[in-house]
Amino acid sequence: MVKVSVIGATGYVGYELVRLLSSHPEVHIAGLITSSSVGEALSATYASLLSVDLPPLEEMNIDTLAANSDVVFVSLPHGASKDVVPQLFARGVKVIDMSGDYRYLDPQVYSQWYGLPHPMPELQPHCVYGLPELHRNAIQATQIVANPGCYTTASILALAPLLEAKCIDPDSIIIDAKSGSTGAGRKLTTQIHFCELDGNMKAYGVTTHRHTSEIEQELSLVAGLPIQVSFTPHLLPVKRGILATCYAKLAKPCNTEDVLALFEARYAEEPFVAVCKEGSLPELKDVVGSNNIHIGCVVDRRLNRVVIVSCIDNLIKGAAGQGIQNMNLLFGLPEKMGLAAPAWYL
Amino acid sequence: MVKVSVIGATGYVGYELVRLLSSHPEVHIAGLITSSSVGEALSATYASLLSVDLPPLEEMNIDTLAANSDVVFVSLPHGASKDVVPQLFARGVKVIDMSGDYRYLDPQVYSQWYGLPHPMPELQPHCVYGLPELHRNAIQATQIVANPGCYTTASILALAPLLEAKCIDPDSIIIDAKSGSTGAGRKLTTQIHFCELDGNMKAYGVTTHRHTSEIEQELSLVAGLPIQVSFTPHLLPVKRGILATCYAKLAKPCNTEDVLALFEARYAEEPFVAVCKEGSLPELKDVVGSNNIHIGCVVDRRLNRVVIVSCIDNLIKGAAGQGIQNMNLLFGLPEKMGLAAPAWYL
Amino acid sequence: MVKVSVIGATGYVGYELVRLLSSHPEVHIAGLITSSSVGEALSATYASLLSVDLPPLEEMNIDTLAANSDVVFVSLPHGASKDVVPQLFARGVKVIDMSGDYRYLDPQVYSQWYGLPHPMPELQPHCVYGLPELHRNAIQATQIVANPGCYTTASILALAPLLEAKCIDPDSIIIDAKSGSTGAGRKLTTQIHFCELDGNMKAYGVTTHRHTSEIEQELSLVAGLPIQVSFTPHLLPVKRGILATCYAKLAKPCNTEDVLALFEARYAEEPFVAVCKEGSLPELKDVVGSNNIHIGCVVDRRLNRVVIVSCIDNLIKGAAGQGIQNMNLLFGLPEKMGLAAPAWYL
Amino acid sequence: MVKVSVIGATGYVGYELVRLLSSHPEVHIAGLITSSSVGEALSATYASLLSVDLPPLEEMNIDTLAANSDVVFVSLPHGASKDVVPQLFARGVKVIDMSGDYRYLDPQVYSQWYGLPHPMPELQPHCVYGLPELHRNAIQATQIVANPGCYTTASILALAPLLEAKCIDPDSIIIDAKSGSTGAGRKLTTQIHFCELDGNMKAYGVTTHRHTSEIEQELSLVAGLPIQVSFTPHLLPVKRGILATCYAKLAKPCNTEDVLALFEARYAEEPFVAVCKEGSLPELKDVVGSNNIHIGCVVDRRLNRVVIVSCIDNLIKGAAGQGIQNMNLLFGLPEKMGLAAPAWYL
Repeated sequence: MVKVSVIGATGYVGYELVRLLSSHPEVHIAGLITSSSVGEALSATYASLLSVDLPPLEEMNIDTLAANSDVVFVSLPHGASKDVVPQLFARGVKVIDMSGDYRYLDPQVYSQWYGLPHPMPELQPHCVYGLPELHRNAIQATQIVANPGCYTTASILALAPLLEAKCIDPDSIIIDAKSGSTGAGRKLTTQIHFCELDGNMKAYGVTTHRHTSEIEQELSLVAGLPIQVSFTPHLLPVKRGILATCYAKLAKPCNTEDVLALFEARYAEEPFVAVCKEGSLPELKDVVGSNNIHIGCVVDRRLNRVVIVSCIDNLIKGAAGQGIQNMNLLFGLPEKMGLAAPAWYL
Repeated sequence: MVKVSVIGATGYVGYELVRLLSSHPEVHIAGLITSSSVGEALSATYASLLSVDLPPLEEMNIDTLAANSDVVFVSLPHGASKDVVPQLFARGVKVIDMSGDYRYLDPQVYSQWYGLPHPMPELQPHCVYGLPELHRNAIQATQIVANPGCYTTASILALAPLLEAKCIDPDSIIIDAKSGSTGAGRKLTTQIHFCELDGNMKAYGVTTHRHTSEIEQELSLVAGLPIQVSFTPHLLPVKRGILATCYAKLAKPCNTEDVLALFEARYAEEPFVAVCKEGSLPELKDVVGSNNIHIGCVVDRRLNRVVIVSCIDNLIKGAAGQGIQNMNLLFGLPEKMGLAAPAWYL
Repeated sequence: MVKVSVIGATGYVGYELVRLLSSHPEVHIAGLITSSSVGEALSATYASLLSVDLPPLEEMNIDTLAANSDVVFVSLPHGASKDVVPQLFARGVKVIDMSGDYRYLDPQVYSQWYGLPHPMPELQPHCVYGLPELHRNAIQATQIVANPGCYTTASILALAPLLEAKCIDPDSIIIDAKSGSTGAGRKLTTQIHFCELDGNMKAYGVTTHRHTSEIEQELSLVAGLPIQVSFTPHLLPVKRGILATCYAKLAKPCNTEDVLALFEARYAEEPFVAVCKEGSLPELKDVVGSNNIHIGCVVDRRLNRVVIVSCIDNLIKGAAGQGIQNMNLLFGLPEKMGLAAPAWYL
Repeated sequence: MVKVSVIGATGYVGYELVRLLSSHPEVHIAGLITSSSVGEALSATYASLLSVDLPPLEEMNIDTLAANSDVVFVSLPHGASKDVVPQLFARGVKVIDMSGDYRYLDPQVYSQWYGLPHPMPELQPHCVYGLPELHRNAIQATQIVANPGCYTTASILALAPLLEAKCIDPDSIIIDAKSGSTGAGRKLTTQIHFCELDGNMKAYGVTTHRHTSEIEQELSLVAGLPIQVSFTPHLLPVKRGILATCYAKLAKPCNTEDVLALFEARYAEEPFVAVCKEGSLPELKDVVGSNNIHIGCVVDRRLNRVVIVSCIDNLIKGAAGQGIQNMNLLFGLPEKMGLAAPAWYL
């Protein structure tokens, strides 16, 4: 059994980690760390957990954590895990960090997009960007996994195969992404007031959203040349799910079938990627509740463009589920263990 | 491994059975029977199942079914399973029938409330009403389980302990129940058009809903005297979940604590029942996605009444999950097997 | 033109007042008072008002208000209008108070249910409970209107005709009410976080909700004897609308037709009340967006009970619209002026 | 008073026309034509209209219609108004056609995108494309208005000023549009089943949606050269509203302020267009319930692209409201008459 602790257990990503980990056959939940509600049961906040045996919420104590845990999920806002991750690293514990802090090869890019000094540049070389479909081997060998962002997972996996195959013009990429509101977290803000969001939709962070830089880093690595993308996130009146509609000019003549074949070939061995048949496109409900990503596309021969649509559950493949997938890799467990459940659909 | 087939696999209850059974460690899905889409994959209708290995949809053939299955879930509209259940019974296969057809000890009550002759009165003595909290032993010994209705499960479990304890006036029961729209099934009707239901709510079937009679049968058994109840169902603009608000006059002086103690005692050993602490009441999100029922109550000493609130997921504890719970009982498997996942909450 | 000011213009009820008043042909909006955002346009908070000419938000100054306004809507939380209403009264301005502060004939009942001393008991005799269907003449003659609560409007109008006609047992009334979340106001709380409310439903304030006492006061007046009711509010995952399902024992034999005839007769001249035909019941969408209340019922002859269902828009007939209806009465304007628009339905 | 009839009154656009027309001070609703429910009240389908005096639904009789009506709104599916519009035209009645049938200068474009022969090419020269912001004078002088599509209204008004000013590269336009589900109409289909749409989102009609051609026609006229656009519609789990996110390369260096100034100048006199200030972008709730379009933008100087966001209510500015705006133009009424109400926001 892998002994697992979660820091930030009362947030939405923390909750989702606990919910999924509680059904993982090789996991023992060792500690639930929080800065509020210490001493309470997590089920006092999330009554869905009434039926689950869990340790009480406790304050952070790095030494106790390190002693009791094989791996720690750090689910804190960016910037807040500054001290935690280095200290756990120093004590030899494996760490899966859910924030943006350790996702950047170049700490300067982090500073630029996050408006903060990087928490610890010298730690960066020990971190691996936790997107298994791109970095599986490196993840297996690392001590610190920087778990990817939600928008970035949906966007990168939708575009990487086409850049690898030099099938699209690298300067033409536009990503129009739509996210459920769990992505904004549990914090109270006017925009997530039910009466402000139900029946509503809006774009936000246009041209400035931080995930832009993360997408660009990974797509540049894949393409072998610097890639810049237009990325526009939107807030949807749903709880879960990201749908990314990606546009690019074709760099060589091809039809829908050809592009789908590229995806099929690239992801043939991937346990969580499904490619939609021609004529069919992914919808949120096909993936929400699961760790799956569905990808479909249509080639517009009239305009020589391709439109790729990808869908994930932002809390699972976009956060907690991908974290557990990374945990499985870190500990040599089957990659689907604890993550095989299909989407809810209803 | 138990070999399981599902008749009516493309309906919402059928889908939910397949979704849950696909994660059950002791189940092999042997056959998926449907009258439409024969030959197709179920994932052509429900793309959430793209990642799950399932047999293709096939037409009903009783002999093949009987040969390949240890148990068959019959998820057909009431009246439609007329021939199916007797024929499976005759071939010695265990049957879990999701319709109302075999739920009545007295076939005349069925005829009265369903406006149909009973499909086969002589089969009724071989059937057990599949509410494990009331009939666990009988279920373990039967060949045919009549799986309870969704409203009825939420209502009976909220009231049975108080009638058993003679704590409430048996003539004073009012059940005001609210259900998500998966309860109406996949059939297209104006009332479940998104634009007609989103932001809407309504009562329906007032004084005439069939589940009234099922609630009355079971509560009468529990109380040892004939019980009649006012039952008003409402359609909610949510997909899943039933919340039942039950009212009764107190038959003896007691406070909230006393009533909660009755529930605690009655359900102490029940794997799927949680009783809320004083000051807390169940909400849909605490149970949706799980096989759990949450029950809470408040005594109104001013008016000498008690208000009990119960919540279930109508598709799980109210249908597919309870069916699998019954299957576990039929085959001597641990009752929570395949059903231990907590509610989604988000 | 009536010069109208609104205190508390940035709250949801304040906003709804402004939205409706801006289309009222005999209204000049003189002042919008707020404690936050002073100097800004209200459209900076509610961009829907970009196209409407409105005065900027300003701080409260009672003398200026009194000088500029024929009537002031006071839309502040209960307790907060303590000084405002008396001062406006003293300056001869008409006041429509949206809070619970002046709704009680007996200030002690207020103290009991609100847990606060009454703001000014000696002002109470100058106030009229602003439910035109019960108190039209008194409203026309008063200077201060205490605008009713939302749940209370839906509940009282559903039950008053039956008590007047001595058709129901006055000790048997149960009101199970469901409300949209605008009723909880614009304040940020966990329960109205989109992710906590979408797909959810819950009961709250069971046995203790303040509107209970308001319903009891008005029904007692109507019945001519003290009435007590069980009242259970629920929070719905919709923005607008209240649906009240009311239960009572019949005091004399009658059928649905008879009860509907009582409603028809009682409300024949009422501009905002519609009685549903037998076989049809009100739904939220039939009234949301309008000042109308729809009422329907079913008699359960088996149990000798009647079930009455009523629907209103909690922000309109339950607050701002009823306030404007009262304003029309105060100024001798046609009662439907500015309020004739049908519900949105979609 | 203008005598107005509506053909197709029971559909969603027909309903919305009736709802809005019933509050228009210069309109007398003369006839409501339908192929179903003849003889019934429209309020039997839409109970929101219980309080509105309306003629009963009647079968189509062109001569009666022509005799009783100054203008007829034809709200039928494309292709279905084939005979109706020419016959009304021949009888001298003004017509506002809500379908796509008469929107195309070149009937061949219609045939290509609709897969149907044009209903009557010789009538086309008598028709004007009813987008007042582009064709106000022509509309005032015509007998037949071809009312624009919903997506097209949102898209054209978001892009026309930039093409007029030669500010963007005409080959680089991508429109990612999201629509509420009233756009799909009242017809029952699986995709608008509440349980299939709530919490869901999907793209559809990718590269093939008919509105593409309509957008291209109008933008080509504006630009003075042939324009082709990528247009991707998405179905949102909301009832009303379209949000269009439009992308284009800048043809000359400029910043957000410059582009907003173009919009401000172009739409300064427009009664229904509001341009958002820098730093603010439109949201659905700012326009839903109104005939307004809100437009905002952000220039991405890093990538030399501009992102424009526009929002309308698809049933109002995208259909019924724009139709009434056109009616006001046809009859010399103030353009905002009956359409001045602000958006609902809540």
